[in-house]
Amino acid sequence: MNAQMRIYGDLRSGNCLKVKYAADLLGVPHEWIAVDIAAGETRTPSFLAMNPAGQIPLVAWPDGRVLAQSNAILRYLARGTTLLPADPFLQAKIDAWLFWAQYSHEPYVAVARFEMVYLGKPKAERDPRLVTRGEAALDLMEAHLASRLWLEGGGFTIADLALLAYTRLAPEGGFDLSPRPALRAWIARCEQAIGLES
Amino acid sequence: MNAQMRIYGDLRSGNCLKVKYAADLLGVPHEWIAVDIAAGETRTPSFLAMNPAGQIPLVAWPDGRVLAQSNAILRYLARGTTLLPADPFLQAKIDAWLFWAQYSHEPYVAVARFEMVYLGKPKAERDPRLVTRGEAALDLMEAHLASRLWLEGGGFTIADLALLAYTRLAPEGGFDLSPRPALRAWIARCEQAIGLES
Repeated sequence: MNAQMRIYGDLRSGNCLKVKYAADLLGVPHEWIAVDIAAGETRTPSFLAMNPAGQIPLVAWPDGRVLAQSNAILRYLARGTTLLPADPFLQAKIDAWLFWAQYSHEPYVAVARFEMVYLGKPKAERDPRLVTRGEAALDLMEAHLASRLWLEGGGFTIADLALLAYTRLAPEGGFDLSPRPALRAWIARCEQAIGLES
Repeated sequence: MNAQMRIYGDLRSGNCLKVKYAADLLGVPHEWIAVDIAAGETRTPSFLAMNPAGQIPLVAWPDGRVLAQSNAILRYLARGTTLLPADPFLQAKIDAWLFWAQYSHEPYVAVARFEMVYLGKPKAERDPRLVTRGEAALDLMEAHLASRLWLEGGGFTIADLALLAYTRLAPEGGFDLSPRPALRAWIARCEQAIGLES
């Protein structure tokens, strides 16, 4: 029996990458288990027994505990580290970014990328609602980051980590980052913080 | 100057109600400030200065701090109480429900209700995607609650509170709870826990 934490995920998914970035950065030993959604691997009885929602990423520990939802996983792995500073109000502001990301950023920025990269749609044929709302999400980040190095607090936190994954890939969804200098500088800082090649 | 916490919200919104339920249950003194989205009150310069995302609920304190995102607010208000037990893994499981609610439940169950209640659509004309995914979310809760009194742990937590608001209103969105006895019993328990009339 392998006594390591297991991460079930797909490296093409930003939500899965967030968990991998966090585990790597925090030095959490883990086994990565590649899951192919298109092949139905999140709908097998054994996977649904671990996560009835049939979603990845999913983390499983040798003692049988499992945890779903990328942002819940980030928060759990990061507790007690500089990625999630102890101050309760700072944690709350970080939480607000995590919920905003999942509700007002990922469903537009990531889904527009999905349409182009995985469904092969040309940029001009993206769902207009995805474009409008995705642009608004990126504009909000640009305005916020114009006067800050990091989304909250004085350093790189799971708020930055959670938003980085899909924001850096936004150009693959047809979003132009060139008129957003603060966002581009933040992406570069984040990539450096987690040791990613830009 | 009123030295109380202010909650900006709309009592017809489940996301706003969650925050009101939590503040009332925890005995947090507050002033409720009714905000009318339809009248553009979340798009005024003064509101956007507090929350650039233009969303309610929003909590503001007399010292100038503000916090957006209903689930981040719940988590912050509930810290150190039985609504958010101290065990880190139990907190993580609760977090997973909060993120699942915002991504896989609210966008379907609440939006179907919005179509019927606010747009006046007949049940048969709801967006089919909302119906399919909303039914799946309610089925997942029914299966989970078949063997449990509460979503996680041994008592009423912010996971229950967060899911209660829109789940109890699901019939207004055309979802039938009668074949879901575990869900109905859980709703009744939650309503009792927060002192709501069923």
